[in-house]
Amino acid sequence: MNHQAMSEARELQERLTKPRGSLGRLEDIGVCLAGITGQCPPPVPEPATVAVFAGDHGVVAEGVTPWPQEVTAQMVANFCAGGAAVNVLARQAGADVVVIDVGVGADLHDLQDAPGLLHRKVRRGTANLAVESAMSERERDEAIAVGREVAARCVDAGARCLVTGDMGIGNTTASAALIAAYTTRPAREVTGRGTGVDDDTLRTKVDVVERALSRYTGDPLAELGGLEIAALAGFILEGVNRAVPVIVDGVIACAALLAAAQREANVADGCIAGHLSTEPGAAATLEHLGLVPVLDLGLRLGEGTGALLALHLVRAAALVLNEMATFDSAGVSEKA
Amino acid sequence: MNHQAMSEARELQERLTKPRGSLGRLEDIGVCLAGITGQCPPPVPEPATVAVFAGDHGVVAEGVTPWPQEVTAQMVANFCAGGAAVNVLARQAGADVVVIDVGVGADLHDLQDAPGLLHRKVRRGTANLAVESAMSERERDEAIAVGREVAARCVDAGARCLVTGDMGIGNTTASAALIAAYTTRPAREVTGRGTGVDDDTLRTKVDVVERALSRYTGDPLAELGGLEIAALAGFILEGVNRAVPVIVDGVIACAALLAAAQREANVADGCIAGHLSTEPGAAATLEHLGLVPVLDLGLRLGEGTGALLALHLVRAAALVLNEMATFDSAGVSEKA
Repeated sequence: MNHQAMSEARELQERLTKPRGSLGRLEDIGVCLAGITGQCPPPVPEPATVAVFAGDHGVVAEGVTPWPQEVTAQMVANFCAGGAAVNVLARQAGADVVVIDVGVGADLHDLQDAPGLLHRKVRRGTANLAVESAMSERERDEAIAVGREVAARCVDAGARCLVTGDMGIGNTTASAALIAAYTTRPAREVTGRGTGVDDDTLRTKVDVVERALSRYTGDPLAELGGLEIAALAGFILEGVNRAVPVIVDGVIACAALLAAAQREANVADGCIAGHLSTEPGAAATLEHLGLVPVLDLGLRLGEGTGALLALHLVRAAALVLNEMATFDSAGVSEKA
Repeated sequence: MNHQAMSEARELQERLTKPRGSLGRLEDIGVCLAGITGQCPPPVPEPATVAVFAGDHGVVAEGVTPWPQEVTAQMVANFCAGGAAVNVLARQAGADVVVIDVGVGADLHDLQDAPGLLHRKVRRGTANLAVESAMSERERDEAIAVGREVAARCVDAGARCLVTGDMGIGNTTASAALIAAYTTRPAREVTGRGTGVDDDTLRTKVDVVERALSRYTGDPLAELGGLEIAALAGFILEGVNRAVPVIVDGVIACAALLAAAQREANVADGCIAGHLSTEPGAAATLEHLGLVPVLDLGLRLGEGTGALLALHLVRAAALVLNEMATFDSAGVSEKA
């Protein structure tokens, strides 16, 4: 974080034609953007790219979700066809969508040449984290490298804002396990209903997370993670290293951000929490990292949807600092 | 509200490629838009127009604000020059800005031909509501008629979403008095710091509101209101009558909405609460009317800023219903 630019942004906020502090959180976000980019006023964070990392999860064998695993691949096809929520919200926000197969179980032959889809499969889904390590450390590193490559590719292509997206049936269970491990909270406090599972399935999820936590000994990300989560960690790390604002979405992105923060302590300073997912692990993570979410709309869809909605407000925060008149320039009297 | 269209929108939400309810408040807003417009999917609420009604307040004689009254006219000039927060956020959202002098104390000669400024001055500011009726009932009716005329003009020119805006030094005091009167809450519960006044000034404001409440006997809007608040009430009433979604901004718009609701009981059904202002009267109003705000960003600027930020999310809610694929159309399996 560039403290000089943040200080300049705070000072500029005071001179704009509005009562001091009257834009609330929008002012904080503007200061944060100055800190991330090292510029005051901060550049408007556009164009933006949302990267949707997709992977499958062996833990579905435990019955943690009523959705069939094939939905991961079907949703990748939906992303490529432009029909998913992330596509609708990205179009509205003028953001590009890139989809990355980093670990989908199915082959995706039909999508071999789909535009906007990157084939970077590290393995066909993770192993069942309840009974064994989800992936090897080498696979974890490969997935992180995929995420870094994607962030670098987006920034090299001109993106000035990165948005995290994800797809993976079973990934709220992996995220809960990671969040429990990184925040040292008990499984029952950070495990939620994901897509909306019933009480029995929620109990199963908590039990699975508890078993995983008592089983694992090595690196949480390899032991408990997902391929898309490891890739997201790399995506976040690279985006932050390049001083491009990263808007993180829901609980999957939260798990990835914790994994990233274990690797680079201050990485959360370079991120903006797009929204507060209803998954309890999201609130636990944001509290742990000291992040305040932009939106609280009761979302629990993932894909990057909440972060894309927040993007409008993040841009607004930058625009205010770039375009508003000052008391001096507008000839407006200040208070007595 | 068209309950058939709302029911269709709820049913459509279930068929879109996302877990049921996973878009949270966005789904509620989509259903609300269907109810307001009587169509499913609801038309995307654009183009939008934000109408900024400006008026002065005689109650400033009581020392309720440290800002000089001339700032109202200076800010109108700032709106016309495009340098205020409302201009920046309207440009971002692609919304038109119309400014209406319905009661500014100064003459605005310099702005005689300013584009986007409507000269509809009913009187030069209100009388001091602490000691006498803020305006006559005839002036109140004239101001309401101005608001209705502006809404009609916007809709006739093609607007499919109306956004409330306001400017008036002293208007949080008038709004607090109105909100206390309409919700029957005590002055101290609904009177806030407005632009950020100190403890002494806050005590003065509460005292002024209490004196006004114990003084007045007639119609709250004429006795306690502001010219811009009465105009906003008319603007809201006409927009709702024309089945165009009205996004209400902060505490000034809340006071106007209560005045409108006293005249047409169900008017709040046709409105969307853009955000939760930090002014306590805003929360009191939204609770009284059963409205849930879209955003909670600690804003207290007014001008329409919070409602314009919410506009992005309101549009997103409509776009989801218009553009997302269904499970059938995308060939995505549903849960077991």
